[in-house]
Amino acid sequence: MTDKKSNAMWGGRFAAGPDAIMEAINASIDFDKRLASQDIAGSRAHAAMLAKQGILTDKDAEAIREGLLTVLSEIEAGEFTFSTALEDIHMNVEARLKEIIGEAAGRLHTARSRNDQVATDFKLWTREQYDAAIAGIESLIRALLDQAEAGADWVMPGFTHLQTAQPVTWGHHMMAYVEMLGRDLSRFKDARARMNESPLGSAALAGTGFPIDRHMTAEALGFDRPTANSLDAVADRDFALEFLSSASICAMHLSRFAEELVIWSSAQFRFVALSDRFSTGSSIMPQKKNPDAAELIRAKIGRIFGANVALMTVMKGLPLAYSKDMQEDKEQVFDAADNLMLALAAMTGMVSDMAANTDNLRAAAASGFSTATDLADWLVREAGLPFRDAHHVTGALVAMAEKKGVDLPDLSLPEMKAVHDAITDGVYGVLTVENSVASRTSYGGTAPTQVRAQIARWKEVLG
Amino acid sequence: MTDKKSNAMWGGRFAAGPDAIMEAINASIDFDKRLASQDIAGSRAHAAMLAKQGILTDKDAEAIREGLLTVLSEIEAGEFTFSTALEDIHMNVEARLKEIIGEAAGRLHTARSRNDQVATDFKLWTREQYDAAIAGIESLIRALLDQAEAGADWVMPGFTHLQTAQPVTWGHHMMAYVEMLGRDLSRFKDARARMNESPLGSAALAGTGFPIDRHMTAEALGFDRPTANSLDAVADRDFALEFLSSASICAMHLSRFAEELVIWSSAQFRFVALSDRFSTGSSIMPQKKNPDAAELIRAKIGRIFGANVALMTVMKGLPLAYSKDMQEDKEQVFDAADNLMLALAAMTGMVSDMAANTDNLRAAAASGFSTATDLADWLVREAGLPFRDAHHVTGALVAMAEKKGVDLPDLSLPEMKAVHDAITDGVYGVLTVENSVASRTSYGGTAPTQVRAQIARWKEVLG
Amino acid sequence: MTDKKSNAMWGGRFAAGPDAIMEAINASIDFDKRLASQDIAGSRAHAAMLAKQGILTDKDAEAIREGLLTVLSEIEAGEFTFSTALEDIHMNVEARLKEIIGEAAGRLHTARSRNDQVATDFKLWTREQYDAAIAGIESLIRALLDQAEAGADWVMPGFTHLQTAQPVTWGHHMMAYVEMLGRDLSRFKDARARMNESPLGSAALAGTGFPIDRHMTAEALGFDRPTANSLDAVADRDFALEFLSSASICAMHLSRFAEELVIWSSAQFRFVALSDRFSTGSSIMPQKKNPDAAELIRAKIGRIFGANVALMTVMKGLPLAYSKDMQEDKEQVFDAADNLMLALAAMTGMVSDMAANTDNLRAAAASGFSTATDLADWLVREAGLPFRDAHHVTGALVAMAEKKGVDLPDLSLPEMKAVHDAITDGVYGVLTVENSVASRTSYGGTAPTQVRAQIARWKEVLG
Amino acid sequence: MTDKKSNAMWGGRFAAGPDAIMEAINASIDFDKRLASQDIAGSRAHAAMLAKQGILTDKDAEAIREGLLTVLSEIEAGEFTFSTALEDIHMNVEARLKEIIGEAAGRLHTARSRNDQVATDFKLWTREQYDAAIAGIESLIRALLDQAEAGADWVMPGFTHLQTAQPVTWGHHMMAYVEMLGRDLSRFKDARARMNESPLGSAALAGTGFPIDRHMTAEALGFDRPTANSLDAVADRDFALEFLSSASICAMHLSRFAEELVIWSSAQFRFVALSDRFSTGSSIMPQKKNPDAAELIRAKIGRIFGANVALMTVMKGLPLAYSKDMQEDKEQVFDAADNLMLALAAMTGMVSDMAANTDNLRAAAASGFSTATDLADWLVREAGLPFRDAHHVTGALVAMAEKKGVDLPDLSLPEMKAVHDAITDGVYGVLTVENSVASRTSYGGTAPTQVRAQIARWKEVLG
Repeated sequence: MTDKKSNAMWGGRFAAGPDAIMEAINASIDFDKRLASQDIAGSRAHAAMLAKQGILTDKDAEAIREGLLTVLSEIEAGEFTFSTALEDIHMNVEARLKEIIGEAAGRLHTARSRNDQVATDFKLWTREQYDAAIAGIESLIRALLDQAEAGADWVMPGFTHLQTAQPVTWGHHMMAYVEMLGRDLSRFKDARARMNESPLGSAALAGTGFPIDRHMTAEALGFDRPTANSLDAVADRDFALEFLSSASICAMHLSRFAEELVIWSSAQFRFVALSDRFSTGSSIMPQKKNPDAAELIRAKIGRIFGANVALMTVMKGLPLAYSKDMQEDKEQVFDAADNLMLALAAMTGMVSDMAANTDNLRAAAASGFSTATDLADWLVREAGLPFRDAHHVTGALVAMAEKKGVDLPDLSLPEMKAVHDAITDGVYGVLTVENSVASRTSYGGTAPTQVRAQIARWKEVLG
Repeated sequence: MTDKKSNAMWGGRFAAGPDAIMEAINASIDFDKRLASQDIAGSRAHAAMLAKQGILTDKDAEAIREGLLTVLSEIEAGEFTFSTALEDIHMNVEARLKEIIGEAAGRLHTARSRNDQVATDFKLWTREQYDAAIAGIESLIRALLDQAEAGADWVMPGFTHLQTAQPVTWGHHMMAYVEMLGRDLSRFKDARARMNESPLGSAALAGTGFPIDRHMTAEALGFDRPTANSLDAVADRDFALEFLSSASICAMHLSRFAEELVIWSSAQFRFVALSDRFSTGSSIMPQKKNPDAAELIRAKIGRIFGANVALMTVMKGLPLAYSKDMQEDKEQVFDAADNLMLALAAMTGMVSDMAANTDNLRAAAASGFSTATDLADWLVREAGLPFRDAHHVTGALVAMAEKKGVDLPDLSLPEMKAVHDAITDGVYGVLTVENSVASRTSYGGTAPTQVRAQIARWKEVLG
Repeated sequence: MTDKKSNAMWGGRFAAGPDAIMEAINASIDFDKRLASQDIAGSRAHAAMLAKQGILTDKDAEAIREGLLTVLSEIEAGEFTFSTALEDIHMNVEARLKEIIGEAAGRLHTARSRNDQVATDFKLWTREQYDAAIAGIESLIRALLDQAEAGADWVMPGFTHLQTAQPVTWGHHMMAYVEMLGRDLSRFKDARARMNESPLGSAALAGTGFPIDRHMTAEALGFDRPTANSLDAVADRDFALEFLSSASICAMHLSRFAEELVIWSSAQFRFVALSDRFSTGSSIMPQKKNPDAAELIRAKIGRIFGANVALMTVMKGLPLAYSKDMQEDKEQVFDAADNLMLALAAMTGMVSDMAANTDNLRAAAASGFSTATDLADWLVREAGLPFRDAHHVTGALVAMAEKKGVDLPDLSLPEMKAVHDAITDGVYGVLTVENSVASRTSYGGTAPTQVRAQIARWKEVLG
Repeated sequence: MTDKKSNAMWGGRFAAGPDAIMEAINASIDFDKRLASQDIAGSRAHAAMLAKQGILTDKDAEAIREGLLTVLSEIEAGEFTFSTALEDIHMNVEARLKEIIGEAAGRLHTARSRNDQVATDFKLWTREQYDAAIAGIESLIRALLDQAEAGADWVMPGFTHLQTAQPVTWGHHMMAYVEMLGRDLSRFKDARARMNESPLGSAALAGTGFPIDRHMTAEALGFDRPTANSLDAVADRDFALEFLSSASICAMHLSRFAEELVIWSSAQFRFVALSDRFSTGSSIMPQKKNPDAAELIRAKIGRIFGANVALMTVMKGLPLAYSKDMQEDKEQVFDAADNLMLALAAMTGMVSDMAANTDNLRAAAASGFSTATDLADWLVREAGLPFRDAHHVTGALVAMAEKKGVDLPDLSLPEMKAVHDAITDGVYGVLTVENSVASRTSYGGTAPTQVRAQIARWKEVLG
């Protein structure tokens, strides 16, 4: 029987009764203290504006400015004592400010409310994560461009269904991820532009009668403009949801590459060797190298998209304006942002360090009659066969080669002609994997010339 | 015992054995036939390009063009017989084309593959949904602007925690949703611009050696440019995921308004009367009006975000390039798009038809000492009290009013002065709900002047 | 331009280079230290078994036992220094054990592996959460039974679509949640029984050649039996997923009740008064009471179900046996369990403290012709009218009452007879809300007698 | 500019105006017609009970019974015309019944409501899916048992991190999935027992005053008992959510095996050959076999778990009792159930048909020093070395073998003794993969004897 034990645990957890439970569920200071510097920046901008508008005296404004800088330095130095009784970062900062500068601290809260403070602080914090994501993605793109440049003409198998389909180049494969990450970049940039509006000055929910200048605080905090509706401004978490959506799609891209790295590192593939720094070994099997970092990156989509689900579920069906449910927003974005940055950094390091095994890549590309499509295309292009006939002839030649246990280029011309008379020895020009990839020069194709053109374009884009 | 029955059902479902199971799980024609017109548009663009590049003869190209138009008209007329044995829309169209024009049909598939066809068709279809979402959101914004204009100065309670906080205007509340929908609009437009690249010409995954012109087909299909990497192009479903993410956020906004409409329609609130067209009655309680449409709209976030989860889960960890898993993409986007458009249309109709009960709104706004904040602000602004002192005085006055069972404006000046001597009869100017909302003229505030300015701005934006 | 700043931040975050990144992404000690007591319990059971089987000497076993108890007391006393370099809780404990007892510590790891240790520890921890959830749900059920008992015959409106449909009793409404929570209870108990198998002794993945006794360790750790397949045992996280699924459904139930409490607390409803302990006030509006706890409980489904999505996404498509991806399991279950227990405790406190406003409940129940169904049923039962005719007559009577601005019992018998001659004065017996609820004595119906019968049944079930 | 086109499409979609939109969003007949036979079974049980209780005359009851059978046969024969104007399956059936039997049809609805009909019908339908899932899982277990029995002693690599860790047996690997599916079986059975309560007789939400016998209808419909609270009964969708949760975990298991089959089918692994029936070929690469069915099964977790998210999101925060939101429940469960059954059937067929490549499996198992752990264990067991020392010695021997380019059994005894003197030629007994797996006889271990014991146990369980 576990009842006694579990009741004890249950009881122990909440022994202190209702008030302790309410404090535990209600206080946010444990996590929102991460917003300290944003909170202080917001307050400084607000105070400066109040002074300019004549709502605060210059003397009070100066005292507030100095006091806030003191609080900030205390927090940065780790000397600040956060209090759960004061619930959140806003009250903690304000209470300390009052201790330092006295009565003037009380005037700082004129013409604002905790609701617009929460929105402003969290938006400033999230905006920094947009910037961090953009920087992190750019770093990863640069690492991929280096790999692509080094291996613009290394031949490897192009897979569909994890079955060899056609030869492609290593550079082309790397550049596929550059394109995905390029969309991520564009997505984060669009979203950052969309969210960069200042909620400060929306007050509790209705705006204020004080003659404030919201454009001034917006500019001081790096926002492009103030939000245009105060009810919306305190009730909006789109900027967080769009961060989570964009981070989820980015994490999905990373999960695909991570999966490939895990498979490519297997003893059966041996396409790539990951560096010791991003893998772990076994004390008794020194040749074993577990691709831990790749697996952890693959998994990160779980918690990042889980955070997206969490916040979307919270926001479903909430009436305007502020409801306490919305306090559940921060931890989700904190965790998702931390893990996205970590995954991007780990992937950047792993890509920079990894070594392609070009022999294995080429051998795998050359097996499985991977140039059969090139042969069929040659029959259409050079021998004038209709597409479907060309496929039929190619199938017959592959079957012949398979039966003889050789590869396509090993069939003699007479053997080929026996299947279709229009074949000439020009055909041998398309049957090697090098010629195959070199021939695919359509825009965005796998030919090294195309790959290099795209690398050059991306370098220009990134500057 | 249910074993026999369930086994029979189980057996009945798959009585035809493995081949029937494979057909059931593998064929996509049941749903991808919705891509018929996109498939034919793609083929027409491809054929025209092949002819221009000299890969097809003009005669063949003309036959293909005519044949495809015939197939299209058969499908549009409902005279086309779709075949499950032919698996998907691409094979169904091609097979019928061959019946109509013979051998030339076989040449259409030169320099392309089912993989880039799938990507192109689905992208064209999804692009139309972006356009439909944009149009649907604009319609809803217009309906909200009409409501906002009519009620720019109707007073209603502004809630936080569903508790009356301060008076706001009906127009202001409507405009909060205009702002949310405005972000949705911007989000769909950004995503549409990002996704508008043509995958056609990527072939199976590596591009092609035929001298195709991808810019020409891109332009013919309304794309801004061809995709820059063929591996990525056939493996990418970002355009679908971003549609689903954007649709989910939009559906979340709708769920919030729908929740409000359900609450506002209750006998206890009676803030609004929904039209008979968007509610259902009871045969025996004629006064009962169930807000069915609002409830269904509130629920739509479920399936739309569920579709987002579904496709994100499918894409997690897929190696490049095409895997059959990706066939699960279409039904999710079809269902989410259909339901988003339906929810937008129903909300637009409901908003256009609904009637605010202005008496109840005003009465609710005026109860609960909702102008207490205005009083406190007056004490700061006019009587020079520090913010925290002003709050203290206000609390005392509210307590006095509550004890007397009257509202704030009903307190006499001597009564007020007894609490704080600095109060003058100027204070009565801020204690009515009309004056309260009129005073909140900060940018984006609830004052009718501010609301009308935002309505004007939005009208200009929409043109 | 934010590039410099964001790059600095980005750089700052990972300034220490690849090794620091790998440590950050790879180490789990920051969170898995919560498994310390489970890890030590597992090791003690393992050592005792090894000794009994003659694999360890009694002396070594005794040294290990003593050493582990020392480690445990150090951890419980907060004197243990956790090391990130030692990665996880298992290595931290083992390293400290070695410091304390020397060489013998090295023999503890005989016939086991980190993989089965991880599985065992996490399963033991999660099992405690099953027990805590069961205890927490039982507490909440008891609080609801108290409310139900007090108000078994208090009349309130029964809603569909948030529209008054028929009168019900307060006790009946409370008991609806008892039923939901009863299913939660049953669900957690079934899952706990299913998961209670010991993975210990599965070794890395294949079992071991040492003559271990897995039944002995299973029993020592309170498991019902050892797992039956070692590959599955180290790769299984069903016990965590089923906890998360069950917790999600339970959190959904809580969200429904929390939503009702938020609505019932509004100025428009005033059905219930929440205690000050579970709500927060406003410094200037003393009558305002924000239902913060209810809102936070309503929101908890977000992060709990988000955790479910996260772990399900992680597990999708993982090949056997252990992959590092699975390290992402713990934080999700930790957070979900903590928040479920918190939500249950807060709801229990809130339910115990809340006070129904019986006057408002009755008044709301009696408005809106809520006994129209009773009237129709009377016409069928007593006057022998077909169901659809009875509805027609009732509709006519309601319309008459509405037109006269009275309620149904206020119509005179002649007025009623004018609509249908078969009506007698017996009809007045069913038109009051008290009689309405008293009459609904079908099994599970809202009649106080039924409600009391269900309360009695539940008291017996809980013992 | 696409505005014109998109507006036209948008307009076209909803050209018929508000009424058409409401019909489109409100009517459920398009999907709930799948509940026809359940609806009729429920009505038959209800009518028989009404007659027994004297609420219906025997004559009316007989007419209703006959009429319902006629309606059922019309539906089964495909001769029934479903009407959207009649909204749902319940109204469609009732309207047709009235056409057939006249007035008596109107008496069928006595003492019940659409709300309990909806709940009853959907519960009956879902219960059948529980049974179908149980049957489908049992079929798959049997197929796996056949594979396990055939290959109880075939040696293959056991992976962690997709790196060879230790040799295991094919049978052991198959049995890992049997354990997972066994938990699925148990989960579906528990949930079925929990949900098997009849909501019929709950009426709209409050029960009824008619003297109905809910136990009688419950028994007639195969339920174990009636539900105990009528408010809960019409508002509960736990039975659907628990089906979706259980289906999601099951689909996750399938995704893991499917992933393995995709990897094992690659040219680099070649562990297994899938039958032609569950793969598709290429017209020009006859050796290419795409594992389409495995990929589609891997993907099914997406839509099944997506359905779980959808319904959980819908249910979040719904006040009691019925809200129209809940109409969104059916399509999710329909789609998830259909796809789970399909995935189970496809996996069963694929497992039955697949052929292990035992040579490749053994060769892969024997590479990579996979018996290093056995060597270390031998040193502990036979030579008395402490565990950590044994690891050190083993590492040295593996390094020696790797340097010489040979495998562990190829090292001579003198070479071994040079590393550690305690080694005897008994060590060679544990260095072959066959001996390795044979030795792991701990309960649930990979030894063929253990595998056969578990197969025997499962055969007994399934009967």
